[in-house]
Amino acid sequence: DRRMKSENDQNRDIRPGHVKEITSTANPVIKSIRALSMKKYRDEEGLFLAEGMKLVTDAVLNGWRIRTFIHAKSAATNENVQQVAAKARALGADILEVNEKVLGAISRRDNPQTVIGVFEQAWTEPADLFLRLTGPGDIILGLDRVRDPGNLGTIIRTADAVGAKGILLIGETTDPFSLEATRASMGSIFNIALGRCSEADLIDARSAIPARVAGTHLEGAVDYRSIDWSAGPVFLMMGNEQQGLTDKLAGVCDDLLLIPMAGRADSLNLAVATGVTLFEMRRGFLEMGEG
Amino acid sequence: DRRMKSENDQNRDIRPGHVKEITSTANPVIKSIRALSMKKYRDEEGLFLAEGMKLVTDAVLNGWRIRTFIHAKSAATNENVQQVAAKARALGADILEVNEKVLGAISRRDNPQTVIGVFEQAWTEPADLFLRLTGPGDIILGLDRVRDPGNLGTIIRTADAVGAKGILLIGETTDPFSLEATRASMGSIFNIALGRCSEADLIDARSAIPARVAGTHLEGAVDYRSIDWSAGPVFLMMGNEQQGLTDKLAGVCDDLLLIPMAGRADSLNLAVATGVTLFEMRRGFLEMGEG
Repeated sequence: DRRMKSENDQNRDIRPGHVKEITSTANPVIKSIRALSMKKYRDEEGLFLAEGMKLVTDAVLNGWRIRTFIHAKSAATNENVQQVAAKARALGADILEVNEKVLGAISRRDNPQTVIGVFEQAWTEPADLFLRLTGPGDIILGLDRVRDPGNLGTIIRTADAVGAKGILLIGETTDPFSLEATRASMGSIFNIALGRCSEADLIDARSAIPARVAGTHLEGAVDYRSIDWSAGPVFLMMGNEQQGLTDKLAGVCDDLLLIPMAGRADSLNLAVATGVTLFEMRRGFLEMGEG
Repeated sequence: DRRMKSENDQNRDIRPGHVKEITSTANPVIKSIRALSMKKYRDEEGLFLAEGMKLVTDAVLNGWRIRTFIHAKSAATNENVQQVAAKARALGADILEVNEKVLGAISRRDNPQTVIGVFEQAWTEPADLFLRLTGPGDIILGLDRVRDPGNLGTIIRTADAVGAKGILLIGETTDPFSLEATRASMGSIFNIALGRCSEADLIDARSAIPARVAGTHLEGAVDYRSIDWSAGPVFLMMGNEQQGLTDKLAGVCDDLLLIPMAGRADSLNLAVATGVTLFEMRRGFLEMGEG
């Protein structure tokens, strides 16, 4: 429960982290951080990396728990770096001042001014995601086996932009906490509640979803613009890039939607299809001057 | 002029290409084909590569001129390969039967059944693109300095899907004929007319564009849904991923559009923003059962 967590946070006795200088890529701390570029280790540790000042700052400001903050020793005089380092340290994170060789071994960027944060992954229980569907305009987006990290990051960014209430990853989906996905999300990964479940779990929970359940489908019979989406909350499911929604997931939808097209292309990129559908569903709720 | 070209095609004395077997990556023909993975050589030769049976077949069926068709000798018994090879040869292309080492050196895929076509680039003059704007619902999409090949390919796919009349690349844009862009276009690169021009040329041509000229802009003052796009043809300009439209291009727009958002994300991925805008502009023209 989110509220309880946040109360615990306030009562947590946070001791400032340590500042360490590391000059060798063979250092075990550096090795364990580098291992976070692999999904296996991210899953085991429940941690992930965010790179770049904007991303790390967004994460810290949005309350994501930072374990370690890494910057080049040569960037220690940079005022932004100092500020984020101080904030991170106060939150209990260790600060690693490294040389450029070590930074280059962790970073994907060829930029000695870059910074890297190690954060704790945060997942919201599917049932708690659905509790956020309380009224018209509320949308949870379900993503069935999305494969491409760039697509997933772009979709997270779009869901954030329309003001969706959360994203539920269904089945074997690419990791939203990969560097590619977090980068494509442009920081939106830190703004939106993420959950995950199996297809079987989703189908078991179906009757408890307090919303119209819609899926886009190449054999969909309903024009995505023909439904009054402002009538109540919506759970929208989008399927895998190659295969679309599974038959089982399509089978539990109230409506199978189609986006009419005119050219010779027979389908859209998944992130574009999701964007077009989400903006249609939120049509009555997005106004100028709100953003 | 397209019609004249196609008459010339019909009168062209086409001699069937040759079938050659190549077993060395040092072969100069293979070297020149491999060089087409670099923009410099694509530009010099006016050629590009398409990989995969679907892409090569789409290109040939849509009348793109094929110079060379490459497949593994081990795939020579594959019926699809035989059919495309026969068609390509009849169109004058040379057929290269190569070993897996040579195929692997050209291909980006680890698939010995893959095929590769070398095609002539085709560009439509900007003035001819604008001539296609003859009535309501007709759209030409202008793209200002798009940088990411995946974005460009996805946008080409989307423009094809909504039935846009063509795409004009403005300024230094990533190459639509790169493998990444053609792949992301999912074959739509072969369905849509592509032009290119400098920013200065576009501004010079501005008064002759027979359409409402709109651009999306973070400081746009007009809700993209508030205009009756069914009133006449539209030239829509979308700007660079980081910077948006240049001031000069924004300055020649009739309308600067904004997509209202609700979350903390302050912008959309370019391909998503383009998709959302194009589907809105074509809203009155896309119906079920037409696709």
